[in-house]
Amino acid sequence: MSHDISKIVDSVVKEVMEKGTTAVKKPTHAPLAKMTLAAAKELIEAVEKKAAEMGVKAVVAVSDAGGNTIAVECMDDAYIASFDIAVNKAFTVVSLKMPTKNLAELAAPGGSLYGIQFTNNGRIVIFGGGEPLMKEGKVMGGLGVSGGTAEQDTLLGEYGRDYFVNHLL
Amino acid sequence: MSHDISKIVDSVVKEVMEKGTTAVKKPTHAPLAKMTLAAAKELIEAVEKKAAEMGVKAVVAVSDAGGNTIAVECMDDAYIASFDIAVNKAFTVVSLKMPTKNLAELAAPGGSLYGIQFTNNGRIVIFGGGEPLMKEGKVMGGLGVSGGTAEQDTLLGEYGRDYFVNHLL
Amino acid sequence: MSHDISKIVDSVVKEVMEKGTTAVKKPTHAPLAKMTLAAAKELIEAVEKKAAEMGVKAVVAVSDAGGNTIAVECMDDAYIASFDIAVNKAFTVVSLKMPTKNLAELAAPGGSLYGIQFTNNGRIVIFGGGEPLMKEGKVMGGLGVSGGTAEQDTLLGEYGRDYFVNHLL
Amino acid sequence: MSHDISKIVDSVVKEVMEKGTTAVKKPTHAPLAKMTLAAAKELIEAVEKKAAEMGVKAVVAVSDAGGNTIAVECMDDAYIASFDIAVNKAFTVVSLKMPTKNLAELAAPGGSLYGIQFTNNGRIVIFGGGEPLMKEGKVMGGLGVSGGTAEQDTLLGEYGRDYFVNHLL
Repeated sequence: MSHDISKIVDSVVKEVMEKGTTAVKKPTHAPLAKMTLAAAKELIEAVEKKAAEMGVKAVVAVSDAGGNTIAVECMDDAYIASFDIAVNKAFTVVSLKMPTKNLAELAAPGGSLYGIQFTNNGRIVIFGGGEPLMKEGKVMGGLGVSGGTAEQDTLLGEYGRDYFVNHLL
Repeated sequence: MSHDISKIVDSVVKEVMEKGTTAVKKPTHAPLAKMTLAAAKELIEAVEKKAAEMGVKAVVAVSDAGGNTIAVECMDDAYIASFDIAVNKAFTVVSLKMPTKNLAELAAPGGSLYGIQFTNNGRIVIFGGGEPLMKEGKVMGGLGVSGGTAEQDTLLGEYGRDYFVNHLL
Repeated sequence: MSHDISKIVDSVVKEVMEKGTTAVKKPTHAPLAKMTLAAAKELIEAVEKKAAEMGVKAVVAVSDAGGNTIAVECMDDAYIASFDIAVNKAFTVVSLKMPTKNLAELAAPGGSLYGIQFTNNGRIVIFGGGEPLMKEGKVMGGLGVSGGTAEQDTLLGEYGRDYFVNHLL
Repeated sequence: MSHDISKIVDSVVKEVMEKGTTAVKKPTHAPLAKMTLAAAKELIEAVEKKAAEMGVKAVVAVSDAGGNTIAVECMDDAYIASFDIAVNKAFTVVSLKMPTKNLAELAAPGGSLYGIQFTNNGRIVIFGGGEPLMKEGKVMGGLGVSGGTAEQDTLLGEYGRDYFVNHLL
């Protein structure tokens, strides 16, 4: 190879290498027909990134339309108790088709669903941080976040719900 | 031995015997890197001694940084129910990194975490008597005390927490 | 004090000091009317000492005549799973009035009690290491040991049972 | 660019693209002092990649040294039951410090530990697919794989154990 050709090749190689790490766009998801592990992981990572910005060590869980957990991740030094709470939030929102924070009032003493928290073998969580993941009025899965205050968990759950709608559908 | 000498000897013997029980210092622990059975037992005995002074028949449990129980002791005639309560308090404080009494308000009806007591298979205790055992901002284990009123359990938990910091680290 | 007297005193002091650490006998227990924490702890420590000699990191539990746990200790680096197993062995032997190793054959498929291991919310353990603590034909409590092989646990359980009979009744 | 040069460039680009997936080295981890989410995720992805090659739809779970789950992922269309199985395998290997396949014989009817599968609230799994993750003789965490035959799960567990030792320590 002559020196000139070599330079051209070097330049192209350099461009390809750079594009390889910076310019290749995340593959576009095909429209989600049902919850996938790839979508669950992308959603979890988005919520974790937001949690890290807020200084929260979160556990984030995603369930499918059957209420079965698809993926869970515990950020380093998250609360041990948050594993069950996040998983159960992701179950609760699919099984009752509403955010967990909506249950706080309904399930309080005097509320119309008081007692629901004692059903389903303790899997119903009644404070914020769980959000159903909806598509065209149908529940496709659930998101459960635990690790901060109830307010922080709620905010992170809603952030994740919006991320799902805007980036994964 | 003449009578006089005998009296002198008796007096010296008496002094030595007394010193034997008052002046011999407890062997110093090496700095605790993680919870050990020896440390757990020393802590439990200190709390039991205090409980006895207060007229409380306590169950005292110590867990490690993973929330797993290391040792439990039930003072004679303690409540049977206190075994589970003490063990679960020692789990709660590790798994949520806070004293159990902090949960009382948060988990009350209307509180932001109302319902957390029904998660984790009933292992979250929300009244006083559980204290995390911290070293340099990290949870090394948990102490759970049950057997008196909530106030007495709280006082004993805090006594134990201070004993841990002052004598075992 | 003259030199001669001083020497006598020194010698007596020396003897008392030595006796203080070697010859003072463990205070004799009053005959045990029911399981006490003091007896449980002495028994646990005897079993732990034997386990250490055998190179076993054991969890040792003692229950009372009601099957309720009185004390549990986990030797450093014992199996996490051994906590439940030791506690449940101590329950099993009181609740069925026999050593757990006797259940191995009875509870095996084809045995006359096959299936008993699925009753009592999983608290019936059917391999060696649990021994009832008897006095005059009555069950006073139970000992549960877990951490070695079934053979080691059985040996330690029997060692503890004998220690109980010989030193604590 | 002349046709000839174009062909050379194409060839180089092709080579770089291929090397891009084979020769770029993974960033080196600092030595793991305890299980982290980053390490758990890398391990899970390695096992999933191997499972995909084998045509197995696996659930893969990683726990820490306390037996608490750090991360779980369910490959698309994995068995629903595999979630609990993988999580419990990851618990079993930490809590008993041995691969789950070692329990198969011990816990079979007639084996010395027959019945251990009914202790610990059903969390002890006694068929292959769980492997302790060791460093210098200490358990740092556990890996649980479920989704294929017992042989496939065992192979995937061992693959993951080796990956952990070779790439993550």
